[in-house]
Amino acid sequence: MTEPNIHEGERLDGLPSQEVKVIQNPDMFAYSLDAVLLAYFANPNKKGRGRTVDLGAGTGAVGLFYAKKVTGSVTLVEIQEELAAMAKRSVRLNGLEDRVSVIHADMQEVFDQIKPGSVDTVLCNPPYFPIKEKTKQNEDEHYQIARHEVAIDLPKLAQTANKLLKNKGKFFMVHRPERLGDIFAALTDRGLEIKHLQFVYGKADREANMVLVEAIKQGRSGGVRILPPIIAYTADNQYTEQVQTILYGKAWTLD
Amino acid sequence: MTEPNIHEGERLDGLPSQEVKVIQNPDMFAYSLDAVLLAYFANPNKKGRGRTVDLGAGTGAVGLFYAKKVTGSVTLVEIQEELAAMAKRSVRLNGLEDRVSVIHADMQEVFDQIKPGSVDTVLCNPPYFPIKEKTKQNEDEHYQIARHEVAIDLPKLAQTANKLLKNKGKFFMVHRPERLGDIFAALTDRGLEIKHLQFVYGKADREANMVLVEAIKQGRSGGVRILPPIIAYTADNQYTEQVQTILYGKAWTLD
Repeated sequence: MTEPNIHEGERLDGLPSQEVKVIQNPDMFAYSLDAVLLAYFANPNKKGRGRTVDLGAGTGAVGLFYAKKVTGSVTLVEIQEELAAMAKRSVRLNGLEDRVSVIHADMQEVFDQIKPGSVDTVLCNPPYFPIKEKTKQNEDEHYQIARHEVAIDLPKLAQTANKLLKNKGKFFMVHRPERLGDIFAALTDRGLEIKHLQFVYGKADREANMVLVEAIKQGRSGGVRILPPIIAYTADNQYTEQVQTILYGKAWTLD
Repeated sequence: MTEPNIHEGERLDGLPSQEVKVIQNPDMFAYSLDAVLLAYFANPNKKGRGRTVDLGAGTGAVGLFYAKKVTGSVTLVEIQEELAAMAKRSVRLNGLEDRVSVIHADMQEVFDQIKPGSVDTVLCNPPYFPIKEKTKQNEDEHYQIARHEVAIDLPKLAQTANKLLKNKGKFFMVHRPERLGDIFAALTDRGLEIKHLQFVYGKADREANMVLVEAIKQGRSGGVRILPPIIAYTADNQYTEQVQTILYGKAWTLD
């Protein structure tokens, strides 16, 4: 079966549990388990009826997976034109045009299109690596912007999220555990109080390779809770039951 | 068999894997799994030949368990006279007088007895709760000092540890995960760079209730690593194999 919306070099990746398909081009960018877990982890206020913004949305994976478990609007903000265009096509492909929109913009200059203090929930799967750690010299520009803090870094991201959010609005992010000190500093200094962390361990006997973060704008300080561990793979390299359920099980529900 | 060193109200608790016994008085203070895991987690420089100080040693559990896996000296510092006296008797009971000593002092005033900048490794199982969170009004004074930040808080502890340590010396601490933000702030602001964290989850599907922390004096910033999860209990409330091995298995070795 051919999909009229799919261009050359692109493919369609699906998340069975959410019945969502996302157009991807592996030459430019492709989402991974990080995006799925962030969308799964995000547990918004107002039973999901409020407004959500996905900052640095890429091809829209996080926002689209998340959109299926809420009833409110979701706005995807992406700085890279090609990725924003793919995200737009994916929105249509999933029939979500009534609730999900895409803005092609630098998140730091989005305030004429999204009013400061108007957002209930911000999601972000940001670039993980400081610029100084750039190792792959010939890396494609699309990947560079998605992976390295070229266009946005943690302090600027925290400031943008804080400006968009209402008081007590929630910020959800996935990041690398080695940045945990930077994450605490950047968020706490910009009025985002970390309330929940959840670590993802590749295997039960491996170090964590992902951390999921929930912070609240003007939340009370102190009282971080560390949610149960997520173990991605079994000893024989299969997804654990826990992750299989997230990927292929029943549609996600909000707490 | 009667033990001549054991006074009324006291009991002898042992850690089989390390072949150590600790005199305890449950009316005053008794160590728990936290102390065992801290001693197990602490992985000092110099293959354990350097000088270690256990700050707020209580009855000496952490320092004694740890002493059995190193060859260097261990100094226990405890502010409460009765607990320091019990620790002294436990040192003799385990025949460790040649390497383990006890100082009855406020850790913040120990610098005439332990020279600043002379210590390779500092261990600490500190009070977990801010004073404002004190709930048990009639709690015994010994427990209050051990549990609440009455005599020492995180910033003062970090300052004391930093002052005692040589450059690149290691600081090991066990604490409660809800204090993670305070821990990052207190240690980072006082020259102790967090390098490893290990979370202890009561069960596989429970939130973490303990965090083990390793920091290095004047360590390079960034690059926190999250070690594999420790799960304490199985679904049917038995110690996991992982914890059984720590408690009853082979004697611990250093990396």
